[in-house]
Amino acid sequence: MKKRFVFVLLAAYVAPCAQGYADGEGSPIFGVTIPEGYRQWELIAPSQEEGSFNELRGILGNATSVKAYRNGTLPFPDGAMLAKLAWKRVPSPEFGSASVPGHATTVQIMIKDSKKYASTGGWGFGRFLDGKPVDEAQHETCFGCHQANVNQHDYVFTRFAP
Amino acid sequence: MKKRFVFVLLAAYVAPCAQGYADGEGSPIFGVTIPEGYRQWELIAPSQEEGSFNELRGILGNATSVKAYRNGTLPFPDGAMLAKLAWKRVPSPEFGSASVPGHATTVQIMIKDSKKYASTGGWGFGRFLDGKPVDEAQHETCFGCHQANVNQHDYVFTRFAP
Repeated sequence: MKKRFVFVLLAAYVAPCAQGYADGEGSPIFGVTIPEGYRQWELIAPSQEEGSFNELRGILGNATSVKAYRNGTLPFPDGAMLAKLAWKRVPSPEFGSASVPGHATTVQIMIKDSKKYASTGGWGFGRFLDGKPVDEAQHETCFGCHQANVNQHDYVFTRFAP
Repeated sequence: MKKRFVFVLLAAYVAPCAQGYADGEGSPIFGVTIPEGYRQWELIAPSQEEGSFNELRGILGNATSVKAYRNGTLPFPDGAMLAKLAWKRVPSPEFGSASVPGHATTVQIMIKDSKKYASTGGWGFGRFLDGKPVDEAQHETCFGCHQANVNQHDYVFTRFAP
């Protein structure tokens, strides 16, 4: 019965996750893949990016990261994962003052593994376009930017929006 | 054992939801309250509102609504619920071209019950400020605006952002 219970729980968790690009090719340098079920993770916060990106974004976190956010735990523990989903920002055709998501652009993943990624603050990075990781040159810039701007917040930009 | 199983599932669902303003005072006209666990619902889409609102928003949906979105089911079935969480849009202090959530403003709820809310397209509305419903005059405007702009999408503005 115990096995069956675990199986049912597992099935309930995995069942809605059968879309997206999970478990594809890993990112250069870090070998990060898009985690199973990331689209079902809890919203940490929305954000907006101006300039040439002109995007709306939703930053989602797995249970380990959400727990850390809620408890104010820094650094994030191993196993914490964040996914930043980005879409082009387009005017709502139905409500004049609103902008809404247009086509999806990138999915960006951060995974905490303090041993594996010791040289980059414990974080592995992956930036994906249509489910494929972008090139090595782009991945070389990830940690430098996070280190320069948010080293006081364990290299994570996003704060929890309550 | 069956009872215990249901209890464990229920506990697993309810446990993370012990914050927020769930189950407080109902909205005027509709009697809609903020549903338990809404903050853990899946992200349907982010959005942005300009002008005097100047907000970033995250629209979350319960499992019934997410299933309807994924299957393209219209009208939404009874039991579908949507929550629009809004925050003031402020410049990121750490990344020049980004905007991030400032203080939380409103939580807005839509609940589908085709019998109870037959006169408003099957939807009950609730708009909450600091967990308290706003006044009746504001609630009188909900359906008129949804009807005027998105009657072809079962009175729901938000589309699923994949």
